[in-house]
Amino acid sequence: MFNFDFHNPTRIFFGKDRLDSIDQVVPADATVLITYGGGSAVKSGLIDKVKIVLGNRKVYEFGGIEPNPRYETLMKAVEIVRSENIDFLIAVGGGSVIDGTKFITLASSYKGDGRDLLKYGFTPITSEVVGTVVPIGTVLTLPATGSEMNSGAVISYEHGKFPVMSPLTFPKFSTLDPTITFTLPKIQVANGIIDTFVHTTEQYLTYPVDARLQDRMAEGILQTLIEIGETTVNEPENYDARANLVWCATLALNGIIATGVPVDWSVHMLGHELTALFGIDHGQTLAIVLPPMLEVRREQKRAKLLQYAERVWKIEDGSDEEKITLAIQKTREFFENLGVKTRFSEYGVEADQIPVVIEQLKAHGMTALSETQDLTLDISQQILERAL
Amino acid sequence: MFNFDFHNPTRIFFGKDRLDSIDQVVPADATVLITYGGGSAVKSGLIDKVKIVLGNRKVYEFGGIEPNPRYETLMKAVEIVRSENIDFLIAVGGGSVIDGTKFITLASSYKGDGRDLLKYGFTPITSEVVGTVVPIGTVLTLPATGSEMNSGAVISYEHGKFPVMSPLTFPKFSTLDPTITFTLPKIQVANGIIDTFVHTTEQYLTYPVDARLQDRMAEGILQTLIEIGETTVNEPENYDARANLVWCATLALNGIIATGVPVDWSVHMLGHELTALFGIDHGQTLAIVLPPMLEVRREQKRAKLLQYAERVWKIEDGSDEEKITLAIQKTREFFENLGVKTRFSEYGVEADQIPVVIEQLKAHGMTALSETQDLTLDISQQILERAL
Repeated sequence: MFNFDFHNPTRIFFGKDRLDSIDQVVPADATVLITYGGGSAVKSGLIDKVKIVLGNRKVYEFGGIEPNPRYETLMKAVEIVRSENIDFLIAVGGGSVIDGTKFITLASSYKGDGRDLLKYGFTPITSEVVGTVVPIGTVLTLPATGSEMNSGAVISYEHGKFPVMSPLTFPKFSTLDPTITFTLPKIQVANGIIDTFVHTTEQYLTYPVDARLQDRMAEGILQTLIEIGETTVNEPENYDARANLVWCATLALNGIIATGVPVDWSVHMLGHELTALFGIDHGQTLAIVLPPMLEVRREQKRAKLLQYAERVWKIEDGSDEEKITLAIQKTREFFENLGVKTRFSEYGVEADQIPVVIEQLKAHGMTALSETQDLTLDISQQILERAL
Repeated sequence: MFNFDFHNPTRIFFGKDRLDSIDQVVPADATVLITYGGGSAVKSGLIDKVKIVLGNRKVYEFGGIEPNPRYETLMKAVEIVRSENIDFLIAVGGGSVIDGTKFITLASSYKGDGRDLLKYGFTPITSEVVGTVVPIGTVLTLPATGSEMNSGAVISYEHGKFPVMSPLTFPKFSTLDPTITFTLPKIQVANGIIDTFVHTTEQYLTYPVDARLQDRMAEGILQTLIEIGETTVNEPENYDARANLVWCATLALNGIIATGVPVDWSVHMLGHELTALFGIDHGQTLAIVLPPMLEVRREQKRAKLLQYAERVWKIEDGSDEEKITLAIQKTREFFENLGVKTRFSEYGVEADQIPVVIEQLKAHGMTALSETQDLTLDISQQILERAL
């Protein structure tokens, strides 16, 4: 097991009818900006419910944060935070709204050009850079990204997606009410399941370091998703299935399964380029990239792939190679059974676009990816060709 | 799954050579009191190493916190905190030292008689009761209680053990270096494994609420302990085994496996009386009580006991009853293989002492224990009789 640091101060309010808890944690004299995405949070009445809980606090609203939140949009909210002396931000939405709100608070306190904050990559942005920031809370509407209990964000600018990390952006609280997710479109639920699944594989399908509990927690998330995936897509008001999904999504990316183990993230790095270039949903890009990634990287990942086959998919028969092949095949079938296509060409992208993707990877410095930092552009090309 | 709140702000520094991290989190101008137990932390040089990291900070020491820390001892440290204006406490030790230090900080800030704080039971002590408290950090020497990443303590006074809970006593940081535990006596390691095991069963062997990930995390801890238990007792310098034990011990009682599920704690409640009356080690009392508790409560716990048999012990053959019986038998054997006796009589306690235990349970209000609050004194008596 590797040495590690772990720190996650976000307070979770989980379950039915938990909005009232917001009143406990937002100061009574706070001036609040509620941020959200499209109109569904308004139409469903959720924004109004949050405002009722906030009572006499002065409340502003900022809607229109898009999926893959864009720098220019977020800077408009920064103006409101500054001009209205906002001292609490409440993000009502999924990962994009929460990610965007993390960027809003950092950029609001930063004295220079907000685009500077996109250059830090995986280097955490500290209070030495931005000073004191406005605290964030979240009301989660879409289980997927885990952003509700971590300190990371991904922000879109021009043709790139930029990671933004800061210990200052852990939400002070997140309200996770599975019933709020009942009205989500099926495809968003399916994408959320796949996002959670691939967050987990990125931290699990690497190489073994004798981190037994971390492995079993990761396997526990994957097994749970496999068990409840189709049910929660097809029975949107099945509370137990949805509750299990919500908690899996949060724990898949709150840092706990990453403690002491190597992490990969190359499926996400390739996926980000596909979203930026072709507008394919994040979850869909992961469903496209993961199976060929595992096929191409089976040598590097052999030991953990075999463990995955045996423990997660309960494959007992056959040679090691056959078990691994079957596990990858079952992974693809799992995604397809959720209603998500797993072939590049099914999204209208053909072989002639692969050089464009490779060019973008190169432009963004994605030339030595994976837990072993040996996933070159040539290997990315092989993966994309197998993804067709 | 039940509704739940989860919040755990403790920062963890895990791995080899992590003492230096203390310098990052203790303010440079702090006046520090280092608390510890017997002389082993001094003799091993660990206290000196902590002092070297603390550099120019003013440092006081308070040793002699006993296993099952006593109120009177802790109040002597309270005098030092007050007279020397201590503004950071660093507990160097296992659960007793850390628990004691949590009580020291609460009692130091409390204006009334410190014994008042023993009356809150499982009701959290808030800042409205004690005001602002001195922050705590820990350097863990014994993996067992999980106190290094939670906000609870158990304090001994006269013939009772009293739970003390407060959100104010989460350690600001805990340094978990498995190599520091290499010099522990075998029996303490074995006790720590059993403590971790039973912390987990208290939160897992209850009744099912479709909390799939929580179940699998609990099973992951139990399976890991079973795999590494004998090795880490018999090979004290096996880093990987010890690292797995340390992280299991911390996660078994940091709140994460309790999210959304019923919890029992009756094995601990009976065990506490056995320690208070007969001086049997905490881990040993748990090894005595758990097997007969599971036998007597097999009706109430049937569904989870069967899951435990099949998933943790991989028992595939036989009827459900046979599987459960075998799982309980294997649990006892696991404890015994660690070198811990599991029969009351092996500790010199005979049947004529059982009424004394029952009297104490009655005196402490332990008359409706367990996740279903129907474990009466009569049932406690049956359990103790089977434990002989």
